[in-house]
Amino acid sequence: MSKRVLILGGDGFCGWPTSLHLSAQGHEVHIVDNLVRRRQDEELGVQSLTPIRPLSERLKAWQEHSGREIAFTALDIAHDYGQLRDLLAQWRPEAIVHFAEQRSAPYSMKSPRHKLYTVDNNLNATHNVLCAMVEVGLETDCHLVHLGTMGVYGYKTSRFKLPEGYQKIRLLSPDGNDSVETEILYPPDPGSIYHMTKTQDQLFFYYYNKNDGLRITDLHQGIVWGTETPETCCDERLINRFDYDGDFGTVLNRFVMQAAVGHPLTVHGTGGQTRAFIHIRDTVRCIELAIAHPPAPGERVRVFNQTTETHRIRDLARLIHELTGAPIDFVDNPRKEQDENELKVENQGLQNLGLAPITLSAGLLAEVSEVAARYRHRCDLTKIPARSRWRPQTASCPPERDSDPVGAPVHSERQHD
Amino acid sequence: MSKRVLILGGDGFCGWPTSLHLSAQGHEVHIVDNLVRRRQDEELGVQSLTPIRPLSERLKAWQEHSGREIAFTALDIAHDYGQLRDLLAQWRPEAIVHFAEQRSAPYSMKSPRHKLYTVDNNLNATHNVLCAMVEVGLETDCHLVHLGTMGVYGYKTSRFKLPEGYQKIRLLSPDGNDSVETEILYPPDPGSIYHMTKTQDQLFFYYYNKNDGLRITDLHQGIVWGTETPETCCDERLINRFDYDGDFGTVLNRFVMQAAVGHPLTVHGTGGQTRAFIHIRDTVRCIELAIAHPPAPGERVRVFNQTTETHRIRDLARLIHELTGAPIDFVDNPRKEQDENELKVENQGLQNLGLAPITLSAGLLAEVSEVAARYRHRCDLTKIPARSRWRPQTASCPPERDSDPVGAPVHSERQHD
Ligand SMILES: NC(=O)c1ccc[n+]([C@@H]2O[C@H](COP(=O)([O-])OP(=O)(O)OC[C@H]3O[C@@H](n4cnc5c(N)ncnc54)[C@H](O)[C@@H]3O)[C@@H](O)[C@H]2O)c1
Ligand SMILES: NC(=O)c1ccc[n+]([C@@H]2O[C@H](COP(=O)([O-])OP(=O)(O)OC[C@H]3O[C@@H](n4cnc5c(N)ncnc54)[C@H](O)[C@@H]3O)[C@@H](O)[C@H]2O)c1
Repeated sequence: MSKRVLILGGDGFCGWPTSLHLSAQGHEVHIVDNLVRRRQDEELGVQSLTPIRPLSERLKAWQEHSGREIAFTALDIAHDYGQLRDLLAQWRPEAIVHFAEQRSAPYSMKSPRHKLYTVDNNLNATHNVLCAMVEVGLETDCHLVHLGTMGVYGYKTSRFKLPEGYQKIRLLSPDGNDSVETEILYPPDPGSIYHMTKTQDQLFFYYYNKNDGLRITDLHQGIVWGTETPETCCDERLINRFDYDGDFGTVLNRFVMQAAVGHPLTVHGTGGQTRAFIHIRDTVRCIELAIAHPPAPGERVRVFNQTTETHRIRDLARLIHELTGAPIDFVDNPRKEQDENELKVENQGLQNLGLAPITLSAGLLAEVSEVAARYRHRCDLTKIPARSRWRPQTASCPPERDSDPVGAPVHSERQHD
Repeated sequence: MSKRVLILGGDGFCGWPTSLHLSAQGHEVHIVDNLVRRRQDEELGVQSLTPIRPLSERLKAWQEHSGREIAFTALDIAHDYGQLRDLLAQWRPEAIVHFAEQRSAPYSMKSPRHKLYTVDNNLNATHNVLCAMVEVGLETDCHLVHLGTMGVYGYKTSRFKLPEGYQKIRLLSPDGNDSVETEILYPPDPGSIYHMTKTQDQLFFYYYNKNDGLRITDLHQGIVWGTETPETCCDERLINRFDYDGDFGTVLNRFVMQAAVGHPLTVHGTGGQTRAFIHIRDTVRCIELAIAHPPAPGERVRVFNQTTETHRIRDLARLIHELTGAPIDFVDNPRKEQDENELKVENQGLQNLGLAPITLSAGLLAEVSEVAARYRHRCDLTKIPARSRWRPQTASCPPERDSDPVGAPVHSERQHD
């Protein structure tokens, strides 16, 4: 069923292929973006490895190619509240997909200015969307789909599978002799300013769902890899962005690109960190599925773990090394995180809705390698190192202490693994 | 031991008597305030019942009276980051007391503009303070004392006493057959946009404590009543503010004032809501105690419930009725909250540090009545009703569903009460 879908952040890495995919599926798509991501490239003196076109050219190319029109409004959803509200009032979207946040952890840690920007942008952006939905009366006719991150759970070894958002617990009485069962949002444990804003977003959603009955799906996405979807690769003018720099580049795409340009694979610390991943083609499918299955009116915030597999970073590096011969370089970890962790994730929700997961394979890696190789002449090697540090170099930056989500010593959690 | 104490929001209802009290105790006090609270009075067309003086006059009077100087810098801590940072860098406070947030739940719900203002002001304010402390290197030499609210726990009947911030739980495995004990921040359950920002503040504190080792005490304060402290009542120019209007007036002071002006006591719904209270004289003592006992370096965020007793609203109304003969008026509840709840609160932390709680007594009420009676000619009766609604009047506004902190049905919680 065709819906009016507003894509906030539709010029970005996930937003652009999603816009094309939903348009191709017959949805009426309207993109909102303030193009700040392109300005961040300028700020950092870096470019997408792939030659992305101005949004106007992208939209024109899509129309030529598909015969479908995608509308675009340039506005800053964190600061142009009135314009956002008027757009919602006039167009009355049936779904809003919210990608429009500063999404890089290293960028969020670069300097005080970057911390402030990330907090101000992400929190006001998310809140403006919710507040505007209520102001124009979109409580029941519209569904907000938000892109969160698996990082809200924190990357620590946990004894049980991470649930999809909600965790069953027994609350213990002060003397420990009595208890009561209940279900809570999994205790958040952010690892950067960026991740922190996503844990705070969850409280916005909780409150607006409770007070105003807004229908919301929060997708806790893993690290996205890959570049192209069937729609972006059918015309070079539609090509998706490929971030490889130390701030916005994500780990697996960075390894593939490093191999393509003959740079050693930069592994932080021991590389023992286990992370959750998803291919960009599954990202767009998941969003399609989320839009097709809004929560019922009155239902609590729906949470899915939008991730298809987990891998240890050094295993990924070894895999790319085996495929390409690229050497591996273990570098000082600029982040404050546990060097080694396990990660078990519940992710049946989206599969129950019909997702058939794409998992890591040599074939898919070859495809990314091919993109990286085609555009390697565009790579600026000096932009590869991850320079943003979680603590100043002078201060000690020990790996994060092995603690539970609120910093108390863990009792029995590790002993059973 | 005398400390350099920076008071953010030192012109407000709690901040002003705290500044005087700490100055009287021998601390070096510096107030920061953008005076927005006075502008909100103008916006709402209302005045403090008591004739508060301009801050400059207050400070002059204090110097005349005590011989002590309190410094003042006018700045908006949510938006003047550079100035805030420079002040911290130059003055290097040993303690920062952070009152500078929009603190009224009804004000935060008045309109979209008020929601946006509350979110933008409170979240950027708190984050700017933390970010600046790190930028200027105040991780170990300084201690941040923040005023939170008992409302972060949500006002639902809970089986056990609300702990001071941290709750012991057993995390259950998906099949329910296994579990692991841990401790988490009590699952937040905000009841307004204002309360929501305070639950988000907790995540700022959690993160900056974890990543940067900031030393932080978060005081979950109950509803403050009373007006005068020993320092504010020694000169009329030092008088504290007394809010009685439907937005900023808090319940017990409103009842006393309503009785003084011959207005019926306005009880929302059945008045079965139980809330936590503290007298303003204990507020200033608690902050003194918190400053004297900073968490150790490396310690997690310290949380105290800054409240001395709990009362059911209709019982308070009855008490005032018995003392004064004022009639009670049960009005439609404009808020979305449970009409009836129990509240059991752990509050030994501050008492262990030396607080000797002041509790509700006819003598103390008489003192507040006396202030209210003295200034009743300043009261604008049209400003008494609470007009801010949690949901538009057209929309249904049923009492909040009886659910656990994350909106799931409660299993056994109520049955055992
Ligand atoms: N890329 C990943 O690996 C990944 C992983 C997990 C979660 N996510 C989440 O998915 C979402 C999209 O990520 P992405 O990789 O596409 O990021 P991106 O930076 O490529 O895209 C974000 C887009 O939003 C726009 N934007 C930002 N702030 C805006 C504002 N205030 N007003 C209007 N537009 C604004 C940017 O210009 C950009 O086009 C983010 O919320 C991110 O946290 C991404
Ligand atoms: N009054 C109560 O009953 C009560 C109960 C629980 C918690 N609290 C908390 O205690 C704190 C103080 O409450 P209060 O009753 O004194 O409130 P208040 O509004 O009287 O005082 C707050 C002060 O902060 C200032 N301020 C606000 N935003 C600012 C900014 N961005 N920059 C600089 N100054 C700013 C205001 O001008 C005002 O003087 C609040 O955080 C509140 O949430 C109060």
